[in-house]
Amino acid sequence: VISDIAAIRKVMDKLAHPALLMVDTISSLGSVDYRHDEWGADVTIGGSQKGLMLPPGLSFNAISEKALAASKTAKMPRAFWSWDDMMEANKTGYFPYTPATNLLFGLREAISMLHEEGLPNVYARHIRHGEATRRAARAWGLELVCQNPADYSPVLTAIMLPAGHDADRMRGIILDNFDLSLGMGLGRLKGKAFRIGHLGDFNDLSLMAALAGVEMGLALAGVPHQKGGVDAAMQYLQECAASSTEARIAA
Amino acid sequence: VISDIAAIRKVMDKLAHPALLMVDTISSLGSVDYRHDEWGADVTIGGSQKGLMLPPGLSFNAISEKALAASKTAKMPRAFWSWDDMMEANKTGYFPYTPATNLLFGLREAISMLHEEGLPNVYARHIRHGEATRRAARAWGLELVCQNPADYSPVLTAIMLPAGHDADRMRGIILDNFDLSLGMGLGRLKGKAFRIGHLGDFNDLSLMAALAGVEMGLALAGVPHQKGGVDAAMQYLQECAASSTEARIAA
Amino acid sequence: VISDIAAIRKVMDKLAHPALLMVDTISSLGSVDYRHDEWGADVTIGGSQKGLMLPPGLSFNAISEKALAASKTAKMPRAFWSWDDMMEANKTGYFPYTPATNLLFGLREAISMLHEEGLPNVYARHIRHGEATRRAARAWGLELVCQNPADYSPVLTAIMLPAGHDADRMRGIILDNFDLSLGMGLGRLKGKAFRIGHLGDFNDLSLMAALAGVEMGLALAGVPHQKGGVDAAMQYLQECAASSTEARIAA
Amino acid sequence: VISDIAAIRKVMDKLAHPALLMVDTISSLGSVDYRHDEWGADVTIGGSQKGLMLPPGLSFNAISEKALAASKTAKMPRAFWSWDDMMEANKTGYFPYTPATNLLFGLREAISMLHEEGLPNVYARHIRHGEATRRAARAWGLELVCQNPADYSPVLTAIMLPAGHDADRMRGIILDNFDLSLGMGLGRLKGKAFRIGHLGDFNDLSLMAALAGVEMGLALAGVPHQKGGVDAAMQYLQECAASSTEARIAA
Repeated sequence: VISDIAAIRKVMDKLAHPALLMVDTISSLGSVDYRHDEWGADVTIGGSQKGLMLPPGLSFNAISEKALAASKTAKMPRAFWSWDDMMEANKTGYFPYTPATNLLFGLREAISMLHEEGLPNVYARHIRHGEATRRAARAWGLELVCQNPADYSPVLTAIMLPAGHDADRMRGIILDNFDLSLGMGLGRLKGKAFRIGHLGDFNDLSLMAALAGVEMGLALAGVPHQKGGVDAAMQYLQECAASSTEARIAA
Repeated sequence: VISDIAAIRKVMDKLAHPALLMVDTISSLGSVDYRHDEWGADVTIGGSQKGLMLPPGLSFNAISEKALAASKTAKMPRAFWSWDDMMEANKTGYFPYTPATNLLFGLREAISMLHEEGLPNVYARHIRHGEATRRAARAWGLELVCQNPADYSPVLTAIMLPAGHDADRMRGIILDNFDLSLGMGLGRLKGKAFRIGHLGDFNDLSLMAALAGVEMGLALAGVPHQKGGVDAAMQYLQECAASSTEARIAA
Repeated sequence: VISDIAAIRKVMDKLAHPALLMVDTISSLGSVDYRHDEWGADVTIGGSQKGLMLPPGLSFNAISEKALAASKTAKMPRAFWSWDDMMEANKTGYFPYTPATNLLFGLREAISMLHEEGLPNVYARHIRHGEATRRAARAWGLELVCQNPADYSPVLTAIMLPAGHDADRMRGIILDNFDLSLGMGLGRLKGKAFRIGHLGDFNDLSLMAALAGVEMGLALAGVPHQKGGVDAAMQYLQECAASSTEARIAA
Repeated sequence: VISDIAAIRKVMDKLAHPALLMVDTISSLGSVDYRHDEWGADVTIGGSQKGLMLPPGLSFNAISEKALAASKTAKMPRAFWSWDDMMEANKTGYFPYTPATNLLFGLREAISMLHEEGLPNVYARHIRHGEATRRAARAWGLELVCQNPADYSPVLTAIMLPAGHDADRMRGIILDNFDLSLGMGLGRLKGKAFRIGHLGDFNDLSLMAALAGVEMGLALAGVPHQKGGVDAAMQYLQECAASSTEARIAA
């Protein structure tokens, strides 16, 4: 699911709640629209390894004035996690500790790739893949973990297996047979759901490959389902491509 | 199509034909079984960029005693293509000209990957992908270029479009929409057929992605066809995975 | 300087001091002999980016039973730095958070390179480079930061500039002219000393290049010194190579 | 040695000689000034693996109208070497055969690196390294293969060993001890001379490393020589750096 950060902020403001609003954007930054300042986040955490299409190794904090002030009076002992040294060194473009220079070069290229495609196009691409994935899940007759359409995530779709079927066993079968690694259900959903990631460097055919792996895996694992998920997703992606072509021709 | 090298050799021997038998294995070496000595080839040519899963830049010759003798009396002027300097230098593990050392390291790794999977498994994988692709083509109601089942290729499947439909226009639509580059029809088939490569570093889901791109592209290009190609291929791959799992369990 | 860990341990044991002995091996692991268990360290910290010849991105902890027990009763709030989740996941070869998989592959290769050369040879190489660097410094008439020969470091040599000369200005001149980045003096030595690193993936000629850069930089920066540092180091490395060849021939 | 192409052209024109003027720039393109049109070359051949700082795998031809006309009437059988297919395909930015796409991306970056430094600076850098190398050779008391200063090469310096000393043995000793691969003497000079390449991605400290390897290798191989080659080169490079800094300050 996605979280409505602006709405949360509004409630906090209404209640004049003193808490800092921290947002974890690790799975979404660069794949889903996000506005630290406009939505009033105090601390935003991002990482290099998902929407920014890099190996793990970089993490980012955006911090509000309020968060910065709070950090100055906070009592919890900090060293590596302290912002002071980093902010001091960053003024001159340096780092207080050994930086992962190779990833910084990669980041420059990743950001340039995102701008080349255009952020609105990047976001639309992930929204499209979310919708295609949900259409596949519905065609299979499987339940989505996210029940509320307003909360659908453009980067990750979690799907329930029918009761009594082990999602992790199915994930293992799919990995063994098709070299496709699906996400596990987390917390209470462990073994009951699996997750399809459609974030970062991902296109229509990557998604079709993933959905084909799932549809075959459902059959191999003996999970009750209807055929037609791959077809439903493909039909939708084809319609999107058709309208996008028409839009280009009209423009 | 594949060529029955051993049969060609047999006919040449029967006729006591003096020609050298040269075999171009560039698209197949490392993806299809091939036996230079056993089948009696005189000159075999291979390259790094297909079944050996490397960038272009290396080419190989296997040569028979007969071919070597012929090269010694041949009158055609040669320099770079001459075997003499290469064979002299190769004795000590060197090359007469600047070798692409980086690709030789890559080749060592590629060969080790092929052996890790096991050559019989590699060959079976490509045969499976050829069959899945042909099932897709038949479901689409499209004609295969290769009419004789004995000649079906495990690495490449060429498919005819109905008369009056431009295969190159469809290839362009697929490239623009799905970033999938299909092979063009060659020679007389230019504009009339397209080719799906399923060689080298390729698995079931890569094929499903490619076939989904084609099925959507057929629709976007307005080429008359029936739906169901992707489904037919998926059904077949799933059955293969099921029997392969059963075989593993039985063993 | 290097620290005599075993001696520190001995003193701690003699005093029955309850403190944990933590050793930071980031600059030395893989370049200098180190024995966590034998020397009685409680916590050893290492990183990927120096002696292990990789980009930054991996860090390692070796921990004693005593340290583990202490961590279980420690009151300081921890999350990422907690060992519990890591040890639980490591049992099955996994990680509790997204691991830098690419660096783990690199680590496997780095370790195999170290073993191919042989750890005693690796250590001897760095000791040789330390001695060569100190001979250069002495020939230049510059003072070493490390005054006690027993504490000489095989991986890093810090050298004082004469009073009144700015080491950071000289480092800038060397970087601008020769693309050689020397380490800065740390803490009280900032601006007064510079450091030559000779650790990790480094050989005799890398060192000669670095020393030539320093000798030219001393002249360009107008730092009073005698010529002959490069010669002194080269003379020593040549003698080492000669005895090593003799030793090989004798064996 | 370098060849005075413009002078050769002038003589050919004076004699109204009908031969085509072919120039092999493989070792120099991108490191030494070269002007195909201005100097009147008919065919220029270049490669990716030297001054263009890439792996081997790309070769280039620049051809004059006269060469093109000659190729159309030439009788020698050609296939791969024929310009026709290449020129036809190049019109639309394509290639008649599988191109080494990865190297084309590398070429774009290499060219951009050369322009970033500025071609006059690139050429001056290699001229400087040639002079520094010759100063080292003279200090060693060794003879240069190139006797005429007007013919000195900025990219490669070939140096004679005293009679009775085996250059290839010395090259082997240097490779074994210092991982430095020097060029062998070619043709009549095999075993009598060795070559130091200073082309492509190369800076002052790379040269100092190479010269230190040679000076130590001369001693290890028991070749009679005087010390001081490394010092002489270093003295010269330091003076160049000093004037270059002065020039920058003046500007």
